[in-house]
Amino acid sequence: MKTLTVAAESRKYQIHIGAGAVSMLPEVLTVKHAVIVTDGNIAQMYAARVMELLNDAGIASTLCVIPAGEQNKTLATVERLYHEFAAAEMNRRGVVIALGGGITGDIAGFAAATFMRGVQVVQIPTTIVAQVDSSVGGKTGVNLGEGKNLVGAFHQPSAVIADTDFLHTLPEREWRAGLAEVVKCYALGETAIAPLLAPHPTEENLEQLVALCCRLKARYVAEDERDTGARAALNFGHTFAHAIEKYYDYARYNHGEAVAIGMRLALEAGEKLGVTPTSTVLDVRAAIEQAGLDTSLELSPRELVPLMLGDKKNTSANISLVLLQDLGKPIVYEISPRELEELL
Amino acid sequence: MKTLTVAAESRKYQIHIGAGAVSMLPEVLTVKHAVIVTDGNIAQMYAARVMELLNDAGIASTLCVIPAGEQNKTLATVERLYHEFAAAEMNRRGVVIALGGGITGDIAGFAAATFMRGVQVVQIPTTIVAQVDSSVGGKTGVNLGEGKNLVGAFHQPSAVIADTDFLHTLPEREWRAGLAEVVKCYALGETAIAPLLAPHPTEENLEQLVALCCRLKARYVAEDERDTGARAALNFGHTFAHAIEKYYDYARYNHGEAVAIGMRLALEAGEKLGVTPTSTVLDVRAAIEQAGLDTSLELSPRELVPLMLGDKKNTSANISLVLLQDLGKPIVYEISPRELEELL
Repeated sequence: MKTLTVAAESRKYQIHIGAGAVSMLPEVLTVKHAVIVTDGNIAQMYAARVMELLNDAGIASTLCVIPAGEQNKTLATVERLYHEFAAAEMNRRGVVIALGGGITGDIAGFAAATFMRGVQVVQIPTTIVAQVDSSVGGKTGVNLGEGKNLVGAFHQPSAVIADTDFLHTLPEREWRAGLAEVVKCYALGETAIAPLLAPHPTEENLEQLVALCCRLKARYVAEDERDTGARAALNFGHTFAHAIEKYYDYARYNHGEAVAIGMRLALEAGEKLGVTPTSTVLDVRAAIEQAGLDTSLELSPRELVPLMLGDKKNTSANISLVLLQDLGKPIVYEISPRELEELL
Repeated sequence: MKTLTVAAESRKYQIHIGAGAVSMLPEVLTVKHAVIVTDGNIAQMYAARVMELLNDAGIASTLCVIPAGEQNKTLATVERLYHEFAAAEMNRRGVVIALGGGITGDIAGFAAATFMRGVQVVQIPTTIVAQVDSSVGGKTGVNLGEGKNLVGAFHQPSAVIADTDFLHTLPEREWRAGLAEVVKCYALGETAIAPLLAPHPTEENLEQLVALCCRLKARYVAEDERDTGARAALNFGHTFAHAIEKYYDYARYNHGEAVAIGMRLALEAGEKLGVTPTSTVLDVRAAIEQAGLDTSLELSPRELVPLMLGDKKNTSANISLVLLQDLGKPIVYEISPRELEELL
């Protein structure tokens, strides 16, 4: 098992990583009652185990089950949680345990951030994407009809427990989605990731991969907790990815799959602009391949680029792309939609 | 005009106080577009003036009118604001201007705290209560059916503008409510308040009173932004007040009126417990009288005390009262409901 520290400006906390790490849960709690938030699928698989673990340590728990799926990442779900928190008589010293993937972490984290002006949240991510990315760093929120994550808060967890045992039940597509974020961490400088990559890494390698990704994330969060500068580099591949997801109305590709394609496009754009050396392009492409990720896309640049401007009506605005000058050397590059279309 | 600085841990900002202070608004903004949130009553009286002020300074503005009244301090109103913010194409660098009383400040502040994980809010309080208390310190939030302010965030404003000209249109009851909070600041140590007190202070005295109260509040917020210790002293009179308001279902007394009664009861309790010297009791009572506040109450202790335990079912828990050891020397005193009932 590995332990890392995230020294965010607003709070310092630890990430416990490894097979069986969930047994650390009673140790990271300072209260005698906790509220567990999880979706229906995870509840069936793991809720009983987590509740028993707490019970054995003399900690009572209340289970709040939210409906699974991105379509339920809404204010209505958060409001339901507020009422369940109140029914459980949670007070300002209460603790929420977010048990699940990125969506559960975002919803439960936001509810915790705003119930009684903020109660503690412990994140227990159960997907690779959540373990290597979304559970660390304090971004929480829900979607509005007008766009994803338009409502939210920065609310650092008081601890993160990334138990790699939870990953065994992941569907195949979730593995690919997670590995795309892992490859992103390689591109952003965690070069020790490359030799460990495989469509299904060994248990030992998996722990190491999660730890390397969390280390990278922790570094960015410590430097720029509120995402006003350096943290933007973590969007490598994501500007394209958001547009791809949106084009298919979030139905065809999941986020990680779109990120894999987005990284491929960001490498191409970087190479053509003379920003990304061919050797770097080949390195990241090799990592994508080693992880078994598919980066083919039927969309033409003409269809994709307008969506990269987001909801803004002003089509004369530029697109901010994260490009690589080298492994671990991301820059934010401003490009006009027209130039980008011609480039691709 | 007076300017004070609030050095909260998360943000340092200024309070501009005085007749005509609203003209400072363009100077405190760093953007070319702002969203003004106000209720229907205030919109009719002041929105045009504020928008013109911005327009003259080359700043465009969008007006969002929310329904007036505590019954609308809900998540539904906040959700409506999110949609209006999105329609106004507000981005992460956007600014919300909260123009109104405490309710508007709480709602608009919470919407600003959570839209895109936090945009700036400038508070322009238009009531005494809001000018001397609620607009300063970053507490924002809305009510749930289960209780008041159960959902919220700490989100410091980027500036507060307390224009005492806005107070001229206040209804009589709002004056009394505001002066109760002013007397509280006297009790908590701003002794220069006493000679300025009157049911309707002069323009000059009013500016001075607001400034003295803001100075006290700023001191507590700098010391304990997230209300985990010292800031509790600001609840002098409030534990009784919340119970009184709740007993009458928030219909008979407004918050300030209940605070005046609550201070009288806290003085009585303190005196009987030997905590508050008689001279202090007389000093604060004199201030209450000088401000023209009524502190009579028909409720018996037997009806009041159970409500002071809040929503908690456990009647064996103690009640935390803020008592005065002297002017400016508040302490938190734990007392059992039974003892308090016998005392009163």
